[in-house]
This record gives sequence, C-alpha cells and structure tokens, in this order.
Amino acid sequence: MPSPPEITVLSAATELPGAAVDNAALAKLLGMPQQWADWVDTFVGTRTRHLAVDPASGISIASLADLGTEAARRALEQAGTTPADIGLVVMATAMPDTLIPTTVNVIADRLGIDGVPTYQLQSGCSGAFQALELAAHLLRGGVAGTALVIGGDRVTKHLDLGTDFAALPPAELVSVVMFGDGVGAAVLDARPGTERTGGVRVHHAFTRLTGAGRDPGHVLEWYGMADLAGDRPAFSREDYKQIEASVPAMTAAIVNELVEASGWGPAEFDYLMPPQLSGRMTERIVRELTEAGLSEAHEISCVRETGNVGNATPFFQLERLLRTMLPGERALGVSVESSKWIKAGLTLEKS
Amino acid sequence: MPSPPEITVLSAATELPGAAVDNAALAKLLGMPQQWADWVDTFVGTRTRHLAVDPASGISIASLADLGTEAARRALEQAGTTPADIGLVVMATAMPDTLIPTTVNVIADRLGIDGVPTYQLQSGCSGAFQALELAAHLLRGGVAGTALVIGGDRVTKHLDLGTDFAALPPAELVSVVMFGDGVGAAVLDARPGTERTGGVRVHHAFTRLTGAGRDPGHVLEWYGMADLAGDRPAFSREDYKQIEASVPAMTAAIVNELVEASGWGPAEFDYLMPPQLSGRMTERIVRELTEAGLSEAHEISCVRETGNVGNATPFFQLERLLRTMLPGERALGVSVESSKWIKAGLTLEKS
Repeated sequence: MPSPPEITVLSAATELPGAAVDNAALAKLLGMPQQWADWVDTFVGTRTRHLAVDPASGISIASLADLGTEAARRALEQAGTTPADIGLVVMATAMPDTLIPTTVNVIADRLGIDGVPTYQLQSGCSGAFQALELAAHLLRGGVAGTALVIGGDRVTKHLDLGTDFAALPPAELVSVVMFGDGVGAAVLDARPGTERTGGVRVHHAFTRLTGAGRDPGHVLEWYGMADLAGDRPAFSREDYKQIEASVPAMTAAIVNELVEASGWGPAEFDYLMPPQLSGRMTERIVRELTEAGLSEAHEISCVRETGNVGNATPFFQLERLLRTMLPGERALGVSVESSKWIKAGLTLEKS
Repeated sequence: MPSPPEITVLSAATELPGAAVDNAALAKLLGMPQQWADWVDTFVGTRTRHLAVDPASGISIASLADLGTEAARRALEQAGTTPADIGLVVMATAMPDTLIPTTVNVIADRLGIDGVPTYQLQSGCSGAFQALELAAHLLRGGVAGTALVIGGDRVTKHLDLGTDFAALPPAELVSVVMFGDGVGAAVLDARPGTERTGGVRVHHAFTRLTGAGRDPGHVLEWYGMADLAGDRPAFSREDYKQIEASVPAMTAAIVNELVEASGWGPAEFDYLMPPQLSGRMTERIVRELTEAGLSEAHEISCVRETGNVGNATPFFQLERLLRTMLPGERALGVSVESSKWIKAGLTLEKS
C-alpha cells in the first residue's frame, strides 16, 4: 500500500454581502449614540463588517447558500477545477439557512456537484479548521481526489432591526458588534504533483475538544415552534470576560503544540493566522506570540474589516495567505472556539 | 504501511423520553378527532412514538443532550469501554439543542471525554449512516482506535401544543405524526481482535448526495430573531407524494449497489434494515425488496413503535440487530434522506 498522499490547498475564495458597514453606520442602524461607535472602535477594534440585509428595509439580500455558491464557484475557478472534479464536499457553519436540506447540499446542487459524499459540520469559530482537517483526512484515506471545503455564517438571521438595542445586555449586544456575514471556500487536492500549480501543502492539522467541565463561553440558540410562545432564552449569550481570560493562553498552547509537531522552530514561521474574535483581542494575541518567539511571522488577519465571520474567517485568512506566500515559506494558523473550548491548529508550507 | 484495520461495531444503545404515546393519546394531545387516530393507524402505520415534553404542561422533560448522554453511557458500558478509551466522537442530528455549543460537545463533556476531535453533522434521515461511515473512515485512517457515534433528534422543539393542529396543512401535520424523539449511540472499534467480543464488522458503507436539481422533499426551518416578527416560513414542509414516489426506487438502487459492492448474492443477506419513514412505507419497501431477491432477509424495523426518530433511527435498528445476529450472518441497511435526496447504504457481517 502506498503512503498517504500529500494534501494541497489549491485555492481559497470568499464572498461578502453588500457594502461594508462601519461603526458609525452600525450605530445609526441600531439606534445607538455616536459615542458608542467610538467605543466599538477603541475597545473592540472591529472597524467594518458586512450584513446580508438591506439596512433600510431589513429584507435579506443574500442567503448563506447564495454567498457560499459564489465563493465556491470562484474557488473552483481559481483552482482550475470543475464541479465534475469534486469528489467530496465538506462545509462548516453555525447558522445554516435551514435545518434540512443542509446548506452544503443546496450549494453542491447549484454548482452541479452530484453523486458524492457531502458533510455539513455544525460548529462555531473552529469549524473551518474542522472542515479543512476532515477533508484532508478523507482525501488521505482515498475517499476522493479533490475536495471542496466551505465555511461561513449569516449572523443576520439573528438580527431583528426592530430590537431596542440600547436595552440589550452587553452579553447579547457584543454579538451584533463583533460578528459579520460572509462565506469562504477552498479546493483541497490529493493528486500527486498538484502542489506545483501554486498551492500550499497542509503540513499538520488538528482540532480537539478541551471543555473539561467548563461552562460554555458562548451559547447561540435557535428557536423552534415550541419556543415562540412565552419566554425564550436570549439568542446569544457571550461570556466575554471568560473568553478574554482563556483565548490568549489557549492560543499559546496551540502554537507550542504546532511548533513541536512541525519540527520547525518558532522563528521559522513566516506567517501567522491568529484567532479573529475581535480586532483588539487579535492585536493582543499577536503581540504576545511575537514576544514568545514567533518573531518573524507576518500577521494575516481580516477581523478589522470583515468582523468575526465565524466559520468563514480562516478562509479569508487563507485567501490573503495564498496571494503572498512564496516557495519555501511556512505558515501557522490557530482558531479557538469558546462555545465549548475547542482548540484548532494548522501548519502550511509552500513547496 | 499495514493495510487499514477492520472496523467493528461493538455495541449500540438507545434512549427514548417518557412513555409511549399512541395515536389515540396523540389525537387527544393535539385536539384532533378520534377518527384521525384511526386514519394514522391505517395510512401512516406508525402506532406509537415518544415525546420529550410533559403532555399536560408542555414542559420539556429531556434535552437532546440528556437523551444522548444516557444512550452513549449505555453503549460504552455494553462495549466494555470507558470514556478514556474514546479517541473520536461523531454525532448526527437535524435538531441540536443549541447552535453552539454543539450537542456532541455537551455530551462528550458530560461523559468525561476530552482532548479528542469531535464532529457534529447537520443532517436528516441519512445522518446516522453519515456519522457511522465518517467514523469508520477516520478510524481506518488512524485518527483513533475507538469512536463513539451518536445520532438523534428532539423534534418536540418544533411542537407547540398551543397550535390549532386541525387547521394545519397536511404537509406540516405529517411531521407531527410521523416523527418522534430519541437518541442512539454505538461504539466503533479499529483495534485488531475486537470483532471477537461479539461485535459486527462494517463491511461497506457509503452516503452520497443525489439531488441533481430536484426540489427538496422535506424542508425543516429554524427561527432566528429576524424571523420572530412578521411572516415566517412554515417550520416543516414535507412533499409526501414526492417522497412516496421516490424513496422505494432509491432504496432498490441502493440495495443493488450494496449487493454488487459486497460480492454477496441478494439471497445471502440474513437481515434487512430498511428506511423508517413511516410504518406503511417501510412495509411497502420490504415487500418490494423481498420480491426483488432479498428473500431470506429478516426485517429489522422500529418505526411502528418509535416513529421516525430521524438521526437516531438506524441505532434503534442496530441495537436490535446486534441482539439477534449470529456468527456468519450478514445484514444490509438502507437510508434515504428526502431533504435533498441522499442515498446511504451499509453492509455488516458477524465473524
């Protein structure tokens, strides 16, 4: 039996709905005072995000499947692959369009991908890493030669513009500020020689539950018919203090593990894709990691412009990375899911 | 490199909430006339189901995580494994308790499983097969030695007892009649020699999207904050006529493919686990398959007693199968997901 094939990321593409909404425009949309916009600038550090609703009417301008189909179409194009080449589709999202049919199948069907296994992972911030890692595992196992991997969220499904946002407790309001809508896609390939077409080799990847009895840092509800009458739990409950206390240390632990597993020294990484919870937290994490030894790694982030786009985030980082990475360069990616404390890490190398 | 290990199902266990609700009791609960109960008996063929709410108060008596933790605990016990043995957890559900944290992680955490990869598939009726197949792939690839696989649904999240059920269109009412709450779990093992402990070997398994532009046969919505005001799409829309027209033929195609892939003749299968949409449709499918050559296969069904328990269904069938299967016997399982037309098949053999 031959040794398992190497996995190459051939392309990454992303899609955002509508125009960028800056903090001043967001304040206006939510009926918040202008000084609140300054507060978001300073303490959250996220400057813009995109929302899949028309601000004036509140009407949806794009579904998750709409955004995902576009991102996937461009990822396929950039990889020089056609829907017929795709033997596996894996998608990650926290907020699918419907419970069933799953959004992965709606997108696959629209693209003309058929007769192949498709999986949709229910996941938070670490979902893109889970999907990439899972696709890599399945490609190594011979399930398919080429996989389409998609990740995204449409958080505006929880945005009711009629809400009195000024009355929302911070644990709920923070969700509206930090997150944005977006989808990303990548094409992964296990055929020998494809790394030469400009792709980047997946060196090591892992995701791992590390809950150990801790309360979730972030809970996101969905409502069924039984929840519509009477009291409902708040749609989002985020323990930002607990997240702020845990995520930097978890990130450092993931980096240590990736450095050890790769056999490369910390100063040998050329790029760092840090967690993208908020602009401010990313800033702090990058500073701490640089001081701890990742001294040469150039930061690849998107959160200040896109907001935290959940399961799409690492695809926005990958897209930027693929544009700039040179042969011989190495990259390291980290994601932490605060819902139930999941660690995720990834190392990449360009041949 | 050694050849990939064989995968053994060591155990399967299930959990149902509360007492069985028969059609007469369901009619009373929903405010429907007694002749409607007779109609369900005759034309749907599902006699009882279990609901995770107290019929008198409408208050929840069990979450999906509650049911899943119990089923998983018993599956681990029956397999002679402990949480520390589990290196991978895969769960499938259409109706998780929350969007995040995912229910798989809540269950894993409650059981004391930690530091391992966990995946939750968003899926309809074929989800259990997807989860079993995915776990088998990952075990073969060396991700872990032993996996816990869980599948289940808690459809009562969409059951508002204040609804005027008599006014519901059949496409919505059918969901209330055909489905029930339940969770199942199985332990899969890749360690050599474990098939001797009484387990059953996974011979062949596949799941595959076969949508090809067809409209979904079943749509299940979830509601976000943006859906609470104004008009909402119906929570469930089932095209029963289309399902009735498609599922038997799709089942026959899956059986043909499994027979061909196994190298066993149709009369060499001792057990058949058919799709469990409704008692009536299962009856029809079994009759047609028996006539088409599966002449020796003993039917393993649960739908008449449990209702269609969605992602739990195949675990109820597996639990029954493991109790009765003798060395040398072979079984064949089929599932069809009408949401976006997914084919799923599985062959098993007891050494």
